[in-house]
Amino acid sequence: MKKSIKVFAPATVGNSKCGFDVLGFAVHEPGDVVTLSLLEEPKIEIVVIGNDHIPTQPDKNTCGVAAGKFLDRVAPDRGVKILLDKKMPVGSGLGSSAAGAAATLYGLNILFDNPCSDEQLLEFGLAAEAAACGAGHADNIAPSLFGGFILIQSYEPLKIKKISAPQNLYCTIVHPDVEIKTAAARKLLPGEIPLKTAVKQMGYLAGFIASLYTEDFELMKNSLQDVLAEPRRSQLIPLFDKALVSIFECGGLGGGISGSGPSLFALSVGQETAAKIAATWKNLYQKIGCQVYVSKINDQGPKIMG
Amino acid sequence: MKKSIKVFAPATVGNSKCGFDVLGFAVHEPGDVVTLSLLEEPKIEIVVIGNDHIPTQPDKNTCGVAAGKFLDRVAPDRGVKILLDKKMPVGSGLGSSAAGAAATLYGLNILFDNPCSDEQLLEFGLAAEAAACGAGHADNIAPSLFGGFILIQSYEPLKIKKISAPQNLYCTIVHPDVEIKTAAARKLLPGEIPLKTAVKQMGYLAGFIASLYTEDFELMKNSLQDVLAEPRRSQLIPLFDKALVSIFECGGLGGGISGSGPSLFALSVGQETAAKIAATWKNLYQKIGCQVYVSKINDQGPKIMG
Repeated sequence: MKKSIKVFAPATVGNSKCGFDVLGFAVHEPGDVVTLSLLEEPKIEIVVIGNDHIPTQPDKNTCGVAAGKFLDRVAPDRGVKILLDKKMPVGSGLGSSAAGAAATLYGLNILFDNPCSDEQLLEFGLAAEAAACGAGHADNIAPSLFGGFILIQSYEPLKIKKISAPQNLYCTIVHPDVEIKTAAARKLLPGEIPLKTAVKQMGYLAGFIASLYTEDFELMKNSLQDVLAEPRRSQLIPLFDKALVSIFECGGLGGGISGSGPSLFALSVGQETAAKIAATWKNLYQKIGCQVYVSKINDQGPKIMG
Repeated sequence: MKKSIKVFAPATVGNSKCGFDVLGFAVHEPGDVVTLSLLEEPKIEIVVIGNDHIPTQPDKNTCGVAAGKFLDRVAPDRGVKILLDKKMPVGSGLGSSAAGAAATLYGLNILFDNPCSDEQLLEFGLAAEAAACGAGHADNIAPSLFGGFILIQSYEPLKIKKISAPQNLYCTIVHPDVEIKTAAARKLLPGEIPLKTAVKQMGYLAGFIASLYTEDFELMKNSLQDVLAEPRRSQLIPLFDKALVSIFECGGLGGGISGSGPSLFALSVGQETAAKIAATWKNLYQKIGCQVYVSKINDQGPKIMG
């Protein structure tokens, strides 16, 4: 039995513009890398490199909570040392906490010769998200674990559907150097919305799902709309309107806030357009400071690095 | 140039349980038949057989309004005599007014050698629905015109996406002999709904769309849910709860109110299950009186009868 493994798990774009709380997807960049070393005694040790602000107590760290859930179920007398190489920004709206948990769960399942089903791994991951963030939304952890677009068809019971993306669909991401607390972004949302608004959003989301299956990019463009969260949350993000307009000026299909921000994403057909958007955004956020990423949709999820 | 044509257009199930105002589908039975005879002068004559309550004034009849819109655009100096053979129940929630308009538009377009695009036919049909019913919802007229499941991705501008149904998907319909006015059913709906309710419904609708593309019947079953309209409207329909339970007892996937009722629909894999539901419903509504229909999803839309 292998005793250690190094795993990459991808960043994810929650909400995906039209799918508030029910749709997320994975990218190839950025992402987190964890190195797991099994221990003979039941304890969890966490070492973080690349970020001084992430807690290393197992019950306050999503990797630690995820590992605890896994080991409780599979091997209560064993432990693990987790080296988390934090390559992606925290509090960015890119599913940073989920990526670490996904990498940990994927790696542990391989080390123990796959005792857990996808459903169980997702259950552990969701518990980790709930412990670390206070709310168990699955639109980051599920795509980080399984790749592709993940539709959360139902939360109670938790049921998901993976939808593979068209081959030539690219994503551009910008993370401006500002901080938005998820809780603050949630507070901006109303408790109730007009029925008409819900019907509109249903059409957009359903259209987007159909566009993924049929590679109908005209429909995808028309469906990348958000009348639920974006009208209230975009105020939190500097230069939001300009960033959005530039997607279309560059020939992209559309985009918006990733998760609860401040990161933004754009979808494009082909790498050239995606790179053009990246260059425009880099320029736009030059004074604020930012990181920019371009990649295909990641259909695979985590991968073994060593 | 052919001077007359006989056309069948299908009944349709609006809302389709999880897609309030944005999803509808067509069946093979019931439906309406119109016989169109072109006239050399610009007038519209309507004769209705099979129902004494349908107005024959062209501006109050959806066939008449649809024909008027078509002829205004294509041949303002011509007219048409419309013989509407009303084979399906009126005010049933089965898109009765839409079926006549769809048959008329499909037939006229053939008689004039297809001058109008699908988009134009839909525009005329929607105008006919608006004139006759006071509200232009497209989830009946669009599937009656084009067949299959039709997603209304956006109303402004009007954009639709046709989704073909799995080959072995069958629909059972019961029309209990009670009357529900669409306006009364609409009044039961709230102006606002909890955001959480909208998110739930989004998951169900998106799941249903995904299930159509992937023939994932387990997902389809989980997605045939309605937390928007059904909890308020089902009270209008006698024996609703019993009818719903019997779908599952017979092995069906699910179902609910067709349009704003009183008709109910159920979806099943295979004819046998669909027929079993039909027999159960026929028995259930025996005292009230009802019509029951079983057919595959109609992927074709209207068809020429002669």
